[in-house]
Amino acid sequence: MSVVGSRLTFRLLHADGAARRGEIVTPHGSIQTPVFMPVGTLASVKTLTTEQLKQLAPEIILCNTYHLMLRPGVDLLERLGGVHRFMNWDRAILSDSGGFQVFSLASIRKVREEGVEFRSHLDGSLHFLSPETSIEIQTRMGVDIAMALDECPAFGLSYADLERSLDLTHRWAARSLKARDESAPALFGIVQGGIHQALRKRSVEEIAGLDFDGLAIGGVSVGETKEEMLDVVRFTAPLLPHERPRYLMGMGTPEDLLDCVAACIDMFDCVLPTRNARNGSLFTSRGKIAIKNAQYAQDDRALDPDCSCLTCRTVSRAYLRHLFVSEEIAGLVYNTIHNLSFYLDLMRSVRQSIASNSFAAFREAFLLQLTRERES
Amino acid sequence: MSVVGSRLTFRLLHADGAARRGEIVTPHGSIQTPVFMPVGTLASVKTLTTEQLKQLAPEIILCNTYHLMLRPGVDLLERLGGVHRFMNWDRAILSDSGGFQVFSLASIRKVREEGVEFRSHLDGSLHFLSPETSIEIQTRMGVDIAMALDECPAFGLSYADLERSLDLTHRWAARSLKARDESAPALFGIVQGGIHQALRKRSVEEIAGLDFDGLAIGGVSVGETKEEMLDVVRFTAPLLPHERPRYLMGMGTPEDLLDCVAACIDMFDCVLPTRNARNGSLFTSRGKIAIKNAQYAQDDRALDPDCSCLTCRTVSRAYLRHLFVSEEIAGLVYNTIHNLSFYLDLMRSVRQSIASNSFAAFREAFLLQLTRERES
Repeated sequence: MSVVGSRLTFRLLHADGAARRGEIVTPHGSIQTPVFMPVGTLASVKTLTTEQLKQLAPEIILCNTYHLMLRPGVDLLERLGGVHRFMNWDRAILSDSGGFQVFSLASIRKVREEGVEFRSHLDGSLHFLSPETSIEIQTRMGVDIAMALDECPAFGLSYADLERSLDLTHRWAARSLKARDESAPALFGIVQGGIHQALRKRSVEEIAGLDFDGLAIGGVSVGETKEEMLDVVRFTAPLLPHERPRYLMGMGTPEDLLDCVAACIDMFDCVLPTRNARNGSLFTSRGKIAIKNAQYAQDDRALDPDCSCLTCRTVSRAYLRHLFVSEEIAGLVYNTIHNLSFYLDLMRSVRQSIASNSFAAFREAFLLQLTRERES
Repeated sequence: MSVVGSRLTFRLLHADGAARRGEIVTPHGSIQTPVFMPVGTLASVKTLTTEQLKQLAPEIILCNTYHLMLRPGVDLLERLGGVHRFMNWDRAILSDSGGFQVFSLASIRKVREEGVEFRSHLDGSLHFLSPETSIEIQTRMGVDIAMALDECPAFGLSYADLERSLDLTHRWAARSLKARDESAPALFGIVQGGIHQALRKRSVEEIAGLDFDGLAIGGVSVGETKEEMLDVVRFTAPLLPHERPRYLMGMGTPEDLLDCVAACIDMFDCVLPTRNARNGSLFTSRGKIAIKNAQYAQDDRALDPDCSCLTCRTVSRAYLRHLFVSEEIAGLVYNTIHNLSFYLDLMRSVRQSIASNSFAAFREAFLLQLTRERES
C-alpha cells in the first residue's frame, strides 16, 4: 500500500497488530518508520555539532519555524541556501508551522481570521503569521516536510470556544494547501479537538478530506493528563487514513512512544531526550538516572550497559557526574549523545520487532526492564 | 643531544637560530616540540568530548591539580585509575602543582615554610598544599609530567619580599624532588623572580642545579606588561640548560608563541584559545574575529579560509554567528574546535619551519598576514 505525492512517498511495509512499519521517501533520503525526530530548534540539535548528529544518524530532524523566522530570519536562511546548507545537514528536515510557539512563547497576540499577530519573545518586535506566510517561510527554508498552521487552543477552553477554534484551524488547513507553489515541500495537516472525541472525529474528517501528504495529531502534549492524552491518541489515530503517515506532535517518554506505536502512530518528535540531557536526567534500559546524584560519584560503569553510544563506550557514570556537577559543557554533550542514542535505538528496535511480528512482546519486555528494581 | 631520565626523555633534534625542534618521550607517547598544550582544567578540555579532542590530536594536554583535588578529589581519581582513564585520554598529561590557582583563586590562605593553607573557592573548605602533598596528588592522578609547587608572588611586591618568596620557592623545589617515589611522574622545576634579571638569574642557577626533568618559567602571565614579560623570557630562557625541555607557563597569544619560540622555548600552555572561543573571539590567519559582529550575519565563507578544521570545513561564519548570538552550546563547541586547531596547526608549522631552517621567515610572514588589513 502506498501513496505517491509529488513531494513525498509513503509506503506501508508491514503491520503487526495496529503497529505499522513504513518508509517515507523525501528529497533528502528515505525515513524508516516508526521514527523519532530529534528537535533542532534553531538549526542546531542543542549541544551537538552537525558532525556529531550525523554519527547518531537520525534520518530526519525537526526545526522550529517560529524560532528561525526570528533568528536568523527567513531572508538570511534563503539567501544562504536553506536550513540544510546552513547547518550542513543532508538528511530530511521537517519544520513545524510556527503556530505552537506563537501560542506558547510569544508575549502578545491577536488571532484573526487572517492569521495571528504576535510579539517576539526575544525583543518584543511585532510579527504576523498566516497559513500563507507560514507555508512561504517553510518553503523558503527548504525543508522536506512542512506543517499547516493551526490554532493551538489554550487548555480549559469551553466546548463552544474549542469548536470555534477548530473551525478556524480547518479553514487555515484548506488555505495552507492552496498557498503551496511548485517549490513547496510536502505538507502535513494537523488534527485538533482537545480531549473531545466528537471534535477529534470532526477534525479528522475535515483534515483527512484534504490533500495533505501526511496527517498529524496536535494538542496532546499540553494540559491534559497522560491518560487523557493517550485516550485521545488511541481514539484519533485509527480514524486517520491508512495510506498516509501519522505524526503525533511533541510526544513523549519512551513509554509514550511504545504506547503510541501500538496506537498506529508513525512519527514522533519531542524535546524530552535533549532537554533532559541538559538537566542531567538520563534514559537507560533500567530506568531514568539523575546523574548528579552522589551514588554515581564512584560508579565506574557505563551509563547504560545495554547502550553502545559514544558516551557509554568511552566514559563512566563517575566521569559524567563529575562533568555535570562541575558544570562542564562537555557533560551536556555526552548526555545529549546518550539520550538521543537511546531514543533512536529504541525506535530501531521497535521497527525490527514490528517487522518480525513481535512488537507486543518487545514492548512488554522493555517496559518490564524499565520498571525493574535498579541495580545497586 | 639528549637527556634520558627514568620517566622522561628529551631529544633536541634541530636548532634554527635560537628556535629548537625537539621530542619528549613519555609513558603516553612522544611529543614533538615546540608544543602547545590545550588546557583541560577539570579533566575536560572545555566544551569538547574526549573523542573530539582526539580528532584535534594534541600530543599532550594540561590539567589543574587545584581544581581536580577539589573536584572530584584525588581519592576518587586514583580509585578510578587516574586522570587518563577517567577522561578516556591515552596521550600525555602534564599537571600543574596547584600553586598558581591557590594564589589566584582560593579565598583565604596562609603561606608557611611547610606549605600553603587555603580555602576552596567552591565551598570555603580548608585545604593544605605542600611540595610533598602536591607531588603525592600528582603521582596519584597518574600524570606524565608534574610541576613542583612554587610560591606565585603577588604583583608589586618589594624586592626584598620577592627575594624571600624566591628563596621559599627554591627550598620547596628541593623538597619536591625529595618527595618523589618510584611511581612519581617526571618533574619540572619552576623559575620565578618577577621582572628582575638578578632574581631570575639566581632562580635559574638554583632550579637548574637540581635534578628536574625539565624547567619552567613561571610568573610571566600576570601583572607585567607584554614587553616586560617578553624581556623576562628573552633574558631567562637562554640561561636554562640546553639539554632539558623549557616550558613557559600560561602563555599566550599566537604572536607570543612565535616570539617565545624565537627565545628558545619548547612548551606552552594557555587558556586563551579555549576561553576566547567561548567568548566568540576567534583566531584566524587574517587576525582575530568577534563572531557576534553583524558583519558576519550573511557571511557564507569559512571562518578561516586557510584552516582545514571541522568548523572551517563544514559551516560558515553566518552559521557560527547565528549559534553564538542565539546562545547555542554547539557554537561554543565549533569555536573551541577552531581555536584549538589554529593553535595546534600554528605549532605544526613552527616545527616544520624550524626543521627546514626557515623559522624566521615563517614568523615574519605569519605576523605580516595577521596584521594585514582584514578582507571586507
